[in-house]
Amino acid sequence: MMTEFKTAEQMAGEQKQISIAEFFEKNRHLLGFDNPAKSLLTVIKEGVDNSLDACEEAGILPDITVKVKDLGEDRFKVIIQDNGPGILKKQVPNIFGKLLYGSKFYKMQQSRGQQGIGISAAVLYSQLTTGKPTLVRSRTNPNNKVHEFHIRLDTVKNEPQIIKDVEYEKNFPDHGVYIEMEIEGKYRKGKQSVDEYIKQTALANPFSKLVYHAPDGNKLSYSRIVNKLPRRAKSILPHPHGVELGVFERMSKLTKARSIAAFLSKDFSRISFPAAKKYCKLAKVVPNTKSDSLTHQEVERLWRIIQQAKIMKPPTDCLSPIGEATLEKAIEKDLNTEFVAAITRPPAVYRGNPFGIEVCIGYGGGLAPGNTAEIVRIANRVPLLYEQSAGAINKAMKKIAWAHYKVEHKNKMPYGPMIVLVHMYSTWIPYTSESKEAIDAYPEIQKEIRLALQDCLRKVSRFMSSKRRRMLEKKRQSIFDKYIPELAYTLEKLTGEKKETLEVNLKKIIHKELKKDEKDESS
Amino acid sequence: MMTEFKTAEQMAGEQKQISIAEFFEKNRHLLGFDNPAKSLLTVIKEGVDNSLDACEEAGILPDITVKVKDLGEDRFKVIIQDNGPGILKKQVPNIFGKLLYGSKFYKMQQSRGQQGIGISAAVLYSQLTTGKPTLVRSRTNPNNKVHEFHIRLDTVKNEPQIIKDVEYEKNFPDHGVYIEMEIEGKYRKGKQSVDEYIKQTALANPFSKLVYHAPDGNKLSYSRIVNKLPRRAKSILPHPHGVELGVFERMSKLTKARSIAAFLSKDFSRISFPAAKKYCKLAKVVPNTKSDSLTHQEVERLWRIIQQAKIMKPPTDCLSPIGEATLEKAIEKDLNTEFVAAITRPPAVYRGNPFGIEVCIGYGGGLAPGNTAEIVRIANRVPLLYEQSAGAINKAMKKIAWAHYKVEHKNKMPYGPMIVLVHMYSTWIPYTSESKEAIDAYPEIQKEIRLALQDCLRKVSRFMSSKRRRMLEKKRQSIFDKYIPELAYTLEKLTGEKKETLEVNLKKIIHKELKKDEKDESS
Repeated sequence: MMTEFKTAEQMAGEQKQISIAEFFEKNRHLLGFDNPAKSLLTVIKEGVDNSLDACEEAGILPDITVKVKDLGEDRFKVIIQDNGPGILKKQVPNIFGKLLYGSKFYKMQQSRGQQGIGISAAVLYSQLTTGKPTLVRSRTNPNNKVHEFHIRLDTVKNEPQIIKDVEYEKNFPDHGVYIEMEIEGKYRKGKQSVDEYIKQTALANPFSKLVYHAPDGNKLSYSRIVNKLPRRAKSILPHPHGVELGVFERMSKLTKARSIAAFLSKDFSRISFPAAKKYCKLAKVVPNTKSDSLTHQEVERLWRIIQQAKIMKPPTDCLSPIGEATLEKAIEKDLNTEFVAAITRPPAVYRGNPFGIEVCIGYGGGLAPGNTAEIVRIANRVPLLYEQSAGAINKAMKKIAWAHYKVEHKNKMPYGPMIVLVHMYSTWIPYTSESKEAIDAYPEIQKEIRLALQDCLRKVSRFMSSKRRRMLEKKRQSIFDKYIPELAYTLEKLTGEKKETLEVNLKKIIHKELKKDEKDESS
Repeated sequence: MMTEFKTAEQMAGEQKQISIAEFFEKNRHLLGFDNPAKSLLTVIKEGVDNSLDACEEAGILPDITVKVKDLGEDRFKVIIQDNGPGILKKQVPNIFGKLLYGSKFYKMQQSRGQQGIGISAAVLYSQLTTGKPTLVRSRTNPNNKVHEFHIRLDTVKNEPQIIKDVEYEKNFPDHGVYIEMEIEGKYRKGKQSVDEYIKQTALANPFSKLVYHAPDGNKLSYSRIVNKLPRRAKSILPHPHGVELGVFERMSKLTKARSIAAFLSKDFSRISFPAAKKYCKLAKVVPNTKSDSLTHQEVERLWRIIQQAKIMKPPTDCLSPIGEATLEKAIEKDLNTEFVAAITRPPAVYRGNPFGIEVCIGYGGGLAPGNTAEIVRIANRVPLLYEQSAGAINKAMKKIAWAHYKVEHKNKMPYGPMIVLVHMYSTWIPYTSESKEAIDAYPEIQKEIRLALQDCLRKVSRFMSSKRRRMLEKKRQSIFDKYIPELAYTLEKLTGEKKETLEVNLKKIIHKELKKDEKDESS
């Protein structure tokens, strides 16, 4: 029996490094590849989000085509073509064939991608389920050739494997990227479908042209609602209140600044050089000491002083909302709503990260009555279709006193022909999982969502009141209208005036009176 | 304006590899370090789970001490000492200072740890929040010296940094590991507390001795309930039905087997050599072809044939349940319950992974009435304290018709002085996140949980029926008892017999009759 058991030596022989790619291959549900239907959506989402990010960064109005072909036996071919800046030849393999590779993780800048996992995870999923490499074509300039790669991801090493690498001049747009993948998938309609994702993406990116060929043969085209890119989100320095002791210490060791005071004022936002010197003195650290020569105790004292100091909030020109007017226009155009109102709140901060919330509420038109209101959740212009009942947006919505705003509700959620769109934009969205499906319910974020909803609902409630008033008035008017002919008939007999003339005059008088009533009511 | 925008070249300059350690540092909520209270629990959990795994693997009855000291200013010192086999000197830095390093990821074996993230994540969290290295002492043998390391994790490289490394002969147990960490934390009581985790760990590991010094000065000791380690969980080969095409192809390229038929029969469980040859023929592949010379098409054909073939379920001697008798004993001892029943279901399979479910239900005793029943969720002997409303166990419980088993219920969950323990054990637990808080709701897993609950509830329902009967009887008896003195008094007057004698005799008669009734009822 004892032979079954192991010594420390035997155990040591079994311990080894685990590849990040193998880890996510085995735990692919963490990346949004739980099941075939969700996987099809995730692959498309990762591709389109990258295209939109690249276009925006390059200042190009996006023009994106998505094609999904059903190959039978639960297999699909996904094609995504954009008019973005293209990807340099030497970067293509890393971007598609390596997990945790990207340009956005270390920047504090609002973008769709954050972690450098998305598109390479799609490549991983494709080869896991079909064994096929991913085809990528890229051109960065009309004077350059088109580069075509067939890429796999070596999961043991987390390195790209180039199966084929050719270049040619061919029928290809001046610049852009073309991706073709084969995956195991399932095509579904409904709230968590690719169709819905494309529709909501068009809504959240109204400066984009999106064409989508669904596997059932349908073609959906979304044209631009605005012809201008949003304000470019700038990259900012970290705010001192969002940096933990361990990170602060590491930064102090790796900085290029020549002194600790210079480090504070150059590597963080909102610390001036005089303020930096003041914090140093309070922490009993000589301001022109070399930053990496500080002891742990000195670093910790300095960090504590800074955490307690009153420091200006981070700059907010790094944020780029969709905007009230654009949101209203997009919802109105899409749903032909009777009423629409949007609110973009001034930016706030959680853990040193600036963020903003905007809310748009539409009523009537193409929206279905007799249902729970449609909830659209968006994070940095990316629609979130899964985990609706989790996270900050859901929590904030359940705290709203809908009745107070004359909005019908059921189970704490709005009810009726209504759409409620909530957009959070930030330099860092705290997702509850790698698959980016819900926003972590930080108190500061929840509060801002609640305030934005309430701001917007005040407008809604005015509309709902006047809507009710108009309905009542119409009812009264129709009652009067019903009796006018009878009254005219009686008056004709009494006065000898012609019935038709009397009717016209009576109508004039009554409508004038009703209008007066209305004015009195609303003043 | 255009200068803000970037070309493909400029973008390429910003793209780089992201360190897995930096990724998890920035996303520490994914590892269970969401907030100070949960972080304190997570650190202790990772340490204790590792100690238990090591002891079990080495065939040692665990004897673990946990000390938590409040250092003020939201800082805590956590000390964990075990009597396990110890860790070899050269392995200590990797195990504590490198994420994704371990012995369990590639094995198909039931164990608490799976991914090689836990304890190194705790080291990462400690240095992030306090800047302090982790102290580790280890001895593998009474003849060896004690090795002491002070370790940090270099997040940029995901490599251990050894701050101090000494060895000495000192007052230290013959073998074992001692860990000391300083972390930012918060000590709370209640359902998600360290106290509760220790209590449930003792319940799920009744062969362990656990001593816990809480930061409030309380000392909790849990002695062994059984003096024998559970059956050792064996490591098994992957089952062909649990292997995806991409992994199958990779295995076929990396195998040491000399032919494709040998590969199938040696690298998988439940494929005999004759069966392997048969599958090869069906897939039009020559059985003695070298495995790595197959084309992708051939590999895919073979994989499809095997997926469709009827193959015996994986072996189940790799699984180690707690056991019905031990569970009942543990619950009874802990809660002094009036009734307890346990069920260990025969093993089942999801995605090629064997797993088992056991359920133990206790009633009365130390359990509080007037509350929702206590739910204890355990996965491979590790209590899950967070995300109770997510995952397979919750979903399965909500589908139970509690009333059918005469169990009180509220909001689809059992109600009253009751404890319901559900344990899933498997070679691979599909957690919904890296922080291992809930089990993914695979249909096969949900079904087995439901069946186990129902099996156990049948026993409960018998108890509840007889409990009700006993209560009714007691009520009747007390009614009779009330009238006996009056009856005796009347009979004394009529017969002249002494009242006291009459009373005694009447009681005897009545109780005999009641017992007879009871027998008639229950037959």
